[in-house]
Amino acid sequence: MSCAAQSATGSLTTGERMFRVVEELYPICRSITGNGVRETLRRLQREIPLQMEEVSTGTPVFDWIVPREWNIRDAYIKDASGRRIVDFRKSNLHVVNYSVPIHRRMTLAELRPHMHSLPDRPDWIPYRTSYYQENWGFCLSHCELESLVDAEYEVCIDSTLEPGHLTYGELFLKGESDAEILISCHICHPSLCNDNLSGISVAAGLAQHLASQPRRYGYRFLFIPGTIGAITWLARNEAAIGRIHHGLVLAGVGDRSPLAYKKSRRGNAEIDRAMSHVLRQAGREFRLTEFSPYGYDERQYCSPAFDLAVGRLSRAPHGEFPEYHTSADNLEFVSPDSLADTLAVCAKAFEVLENNRSYVSLNPKCEPQLGRRGLYRAIGGSSDAGQQELAMLWMLNLSDGQYSMLDIAERSGLPFATLDRAAQLLVDHGLLRASPAIPDARSKKKGLAL
Amino acid sequence: MSCAAQSATGSLTTGERMFRVVEELYPICRSITGNGVRETLRRLQREIPLQMEEVSTGTPVFDWIVPREWNIRDAYIKDASGRRIVDFRKSNLHVVNYSVPIHRRMTLAELRPHMHSLPDRPDWIPYRTSYYQENWGFCLSHCELESLVDAEYEVCIDSTLEPGHLTYGELFLKGESDAEILISCHICHPSLCNDNLSGISVAAGLAQHLASQPRRYGYRFLFIPGTIGAITWLARNEAAIGRIHHGLVLAGVGDRSPLAYKKSRRGNAEIDRAMSHVLRQAGREFRLTEFSPYGYDERQYCSPAFDLAVGRLSRAPHGEFPEYHTSADNLEFVSPDSLADTLAVCAKAFEVLENNRSYVSLNPKCEPQLGRRGLYRAIGGSSDAGQQELAMLWMLNLSDGQYSMLDIAERSGLPFATLDRAAQLLVDHGLLRASPAIPDARSKKKGLAL
Amino acid sequence: MSCAAQSATGSLTTGERMFRVVEELYPICRSITGNGVRETLRRLQREIPLQMEEVSTGTPVFDWIVPREWNIRDAYIKDASGRRIVDFRKSNLHVVNYSVPIHRRMTLAELRPHMHSLPDRPDWIPYRTSYYQENWGFCLSHCELESLVDAEYEVCIDSTLEPGHLTYGELFLKGESDAEILISCHICHPSLCNDNLSGISVAAGLAQHLASQPRRYGYRFLFIPGTIGAITWLARNEAAIGRIHHGLVLAGVGDRSPLAYKKSRRGNAEIDRAMSHVLRQAGREFRLTEFSPYGYDERQYCSPAFDLAVGRLSRAPHGEFPEYHTSADNLEFVSPDSLADTLAVCAKAFEVLENNRSYVSLNPKCEPQLGRRGLYRAIGGSSDAGQQELAMLWMLNLSDGQYSMLDIAERSGLPFATLDRAAQLLVDHGLLRASPAIPDARSKKKGLAL
Repeated sequence: MSCAAQSATGSLTTGERMFRVVEELYPICRSITGNGVRETLRRLQREIPLQMEEVSTGTPVFDWIVPREWNIRDAYIKDASGRRIVDFRKSNLHVVNYSVPIHRRMTLAELRPHMHSLPDRPDWIPYRTSYYQENWGFCLSHCELESLVDAEYEVCIDSTLEPGHLTYGELFLKGESDAEILISCHICHPSLCNDNLSGISVAAGLAQHLASQPRRYGYRFLFIPGTIGAITWLARNEAAIGRIHHGLVLAGVGDRSPLAYKKSRRGNAEIDRAMSHVLRQAGREFRLTEFSPYGYDERQYCSPAFDLAVGRLSRAPHGEFPEYHTSADNLEFVSPDSLADTLAVCAKAFEVLENNRSYVSLNPKCEPQLGRRGLYRAIGGSSDAGQQELAMLWMLNLSDGQYSMLDIAERSGLPFATLDRAAQLLVDHGLLRASPAIPDARSKKKGLAL
Repeated sequence: MSCAAQSATGSLTTGERMFRVVEELYPICRSITGNGVRETLRRLQREIPLQMEEVSTGTPVFDWIVPREWNIRDAYIKDASGRRIVDFRKSNLHVVNYSVPIHRRMTLAELRPHMHSLPDRPDWIPYRTSYYQENWGFCLSHCELESLVDAEYEVCIDSTLEPGHLTYGELFLKGESDAEILISCHICHPSLCNDNLSGISVAAGLAQHLASQPRRYGYRFLFIPGTIGAITWLARNEAAIGRIHHGLVLAGVGDRSPLAYKKSRRGNAEIDRAMSHVLRQAGREFRLTEFSPYGYDERQYCSPAFDLAVGRLSRAPHGEFPEYHTSADNLEFVSPDSLADTLAVCAKAFEVLENNRSYVSLNPKCEPQLGRRGLYRAIGGSSDAGQQELAMLWMLNLSDGQYSMLDIAERSGLPFATLDRAAQLLVDHGLLRASPAIPDARSKKKGLAL
Repeated sequence: MSCAAQSATGSLTTGERMFRVVEELYPICRSITGNGVRETLRRLQREIPLQMEEVSTGTPVFDWIVPREWNIRDAYIKDASGRRIVDFRKSNLHVVNYSVPIHRRMTLAELRPHMHSLPDRPDWIPYRTSYYQENWGFCLSHCELESLVDAEYEVCIDSTLEPGHLTYGELFLKGESDAEILISCHICHPSLCNDNLSGISVAAGLAQHLASQPRRYGYRFLFIPGTIGAITWLARNEAAIGRIHHGLVLAGVGDRSPLAYKKSRRGNAEIDRAMSHVLRQAGREFRLTEFSPYGYDERQYCSPAFDLAVGRLSRAPHGEFPEYHTSADNLEFVSPDSLADTLAVCAKAFEVLENNRSYVSLNPKCEPQLGRRGLYRAIGGSSDAGQQELAMLWMLNLSDGQYSMLDIAERSGLPFATLDRAAQLLVDHGLLRASPAIPDARSKKKGLAL
């Protein structure tokens, strides 16, 4: 495996630290409710001070109801000799998630409809769920399935499905303003690394990073079971949703594919444009995809009554890579470097959001004399303006109150950070004045084409 | 030739039935007025219950005046031996349409300026007209023209150009609403198959098809002489033009080239978008062209004072294929399959218009729980949502009153019919409510890019 | 050299006449102030009746102050033997423009920081300036620089930097309306041909050409020192700036590269669209570039408080060709043909601006009967409408008061001049009426995509 977790904590890189979180959470059998979620959140509390929230079974949340809590201790299929030929203790993927308890002998013919495999990937175990329809089942490799003989088997799922709670974690880093940025990841998948653990570890890493940064925005981190968790959170926090100016779902961000950003339903929200800008400026391969109502919890955040400016960052395309929802989405499938790279890109995009604002030129009639202020080369005639001079010229030219700095970054093709430094210099020399406010979250200002 | 008309009527395919109409109308010498038009319309009355309208010579229609009626019995050029070397009875293309009568002997030198041929296609007879300037002439193959010797010829055109009527056919299929869809084809060309007979036969076929369908819209079919017919109809029906919400000119739809849709002057009218959607979803080669004020009767429907949402469906590009306006535009040039395919595409586009409406989600906060209603697969985890599930998610996500179903089809890339079925399911389960009205015909709502 | 100036004045082509201006101005040592500018303007007064304006040193102009006037008589570096090893009399590029006077002996080590060369182009002399920071220096070829031995040198710059004036030339050709078109070129570079002399000679040529044309617009020509000249002119004429509807900076228009148009800050101003149309219709290679706040005096005209519709015409990309700001930008680098071609394109673009207007169809219901008026071919049936017929149809179809003729040119793809002729014909036949006014200069009507 990777050497990411071999060294002592103190000397770990950011990527290695995030990978260690993935490694430690990997064995836990998570679901949309139950002790696996609690154990996961407790482990995360060693990284970040998140609150654990519990919502009772039966609580109505919009069109849904918080389901009964599912817990599982053991499960197996034993052959005639009493050997566990399918064993939950070897992989928690072997049990269809939310299986109701069962313990009886049955023929292969009776058992067969309850078994799931992947004929195309005969060595991998699929991941299957049955949250909202009472059912039970086993997942196993197709090779194992094919090797079963027509005999009687002992089938046992030692699970409980009882009134209890839905559990999720929440962490809020207060900002200077009431405006918030939402970061959401799902925590409901059992031993799957890219699909849920990568998002969890990067979200935790981002929370650690942002905790030490000045923050114009507050940052709200949600570690929630997919779909029902997002719905539950939205239902409990409906009154406060107007504070969310931007948001990001993190899912599948640990594999080795290039980063892929899926735009919000609005399509040109500031988060969409910030992410596009950062990815483009990085000069590496990346994908931008339009919003669709299929995927992760952006489905809920972007439902028509909320229409939040929430996009999604991923790597390998959702549902299209063979390892998706199989035992091959394991520790080998994610890398410390990918986790660290994802975190760095998110941090850069949040820097854009933090610093994006409009400026007004205090000297809008012709250019001000930059040279007199030491802001322009003294000897004229050489071919190129330096990038810093160009950035100042762009800021001065477009700071008419109509353009945000992100607009200027898009129009000029210059990196946002370069423009930001130029703006600071010009403010320091009394040539620009920043307009103060964070714009209203619901304004859907038409940005330049992405 | 094709076997399209060989079988008995009852067992003919749709394409064969339409081709038979072409075959039967082919020999008739049509013009913008006269008995050829009446004979054509009478033949069509065996297919559909169209009304024949007569407008008197001299009637002012906007900037034009209904011309005198032209009829022709015979025409020829005889050589010294009395042999008909050009003979109207062999092809009505031989006479310049609307030629005034003449009967006298003349030298080749006198005759030559009145003869038209195609040097580049020496075996084909061109089609020429002189509606609004009194003139006479003959069209013949270049080979024939070249073979003429310098002698005296007997020249005869036994035609009449006298006060009478302009004749056109009209058929209205009433709909549930007052809103109308216009289907227009020209009936003024003599023995030319693709150019006028294909449009006529498809329009008749569409009328037969639509007669048995439920219709939100009324459908108005016009079988009119080109230009002067459209102008006459518009002048006589100016008060009712506001009822035309969408329209389609059918011209040159029988040849074997891919379908080509020419957008209305508006460029993004619902008919433009419906046709584009249907052609794109068909997964075959097609062409979309922007409006231009040259072509067929869309020139009149899209004149600035009317600016109707009328596009044009054709196949081979107007005026750019060699057979255009020549004797080579014959029965070989059109095919039953092309006629049937054109009809099918039109029917699909009208289905889009018939069913296009906005829905409002009755559960806009997060997704509704589809699984509880049996609308979602019970076992989760597999990679792909079925197209039907995707269609439901799109309908739920975008049904905020801002999006029509055609908008959703364009944004999602899903077939309109799939979305329509999903919408019906969701309505049946109380999750969507249809907004009732047909939008105002004159609203030029900006659609998504075509 | 070129044969452009060999013949007698009377028989010179336009390109040769403009090239002769370049040749005669080439030896003069210009700067942003001083006698070189005056001598240049006096030479131009033999071509066109421009006014010479003088603005005193110390005059505040927005954020700037008119600097002291610089003049130079001689400059050299002599070696121990008294030989001029760098000699202003051989090339005025040898002295850093605006060098303060100096006359003393110094070692190579002392002299070295004041010497500029181009290691990559070892035979060329660079052009350098130090307008706003008191300094002195010499420019020389890298070969010469490398050959200098470690000895003592006599260094002399016989210049003055004293209160005086900034000088510029202005010529106004009155038009029928108050609206103006600005043509601006810089006159501050010494012996550089493409960079400043090409723009000067084409501007003068355009003034000669336009003087004999009917003019709806007034044309204001500015021959000004770069940056400080444009700022000075804008400061002195702020009240009248609203009269400038369109403008063009001419710079670097004499070399053999294809024409390149840089759009105004607005990006879709009428001048941007007129230039794009003319360049596209010419059927030759050209470049269109978006506005950026780096370049020539468009930087000032397009500063945010003015935001004038001023674009720039050039050839080789600003700052990107090796000859830029070196002794290689000489008489060989520019050609009479390029100068003539630039003038022709400008003249065509101004024709578009002069004739661009909206028309209203007086017969908007269907097409008018063009044939009756002799405007349409009498014999129908041939494949193609002539371009003139097409142009009439486009004019009639889009003349609803919403479309200017430039809009119609863009939508139809037809040349503006063809549409203009069609419009005149239609006006003559009472079918169109021109809407009279020149639109307001500040209206930023969204044009069709360029």
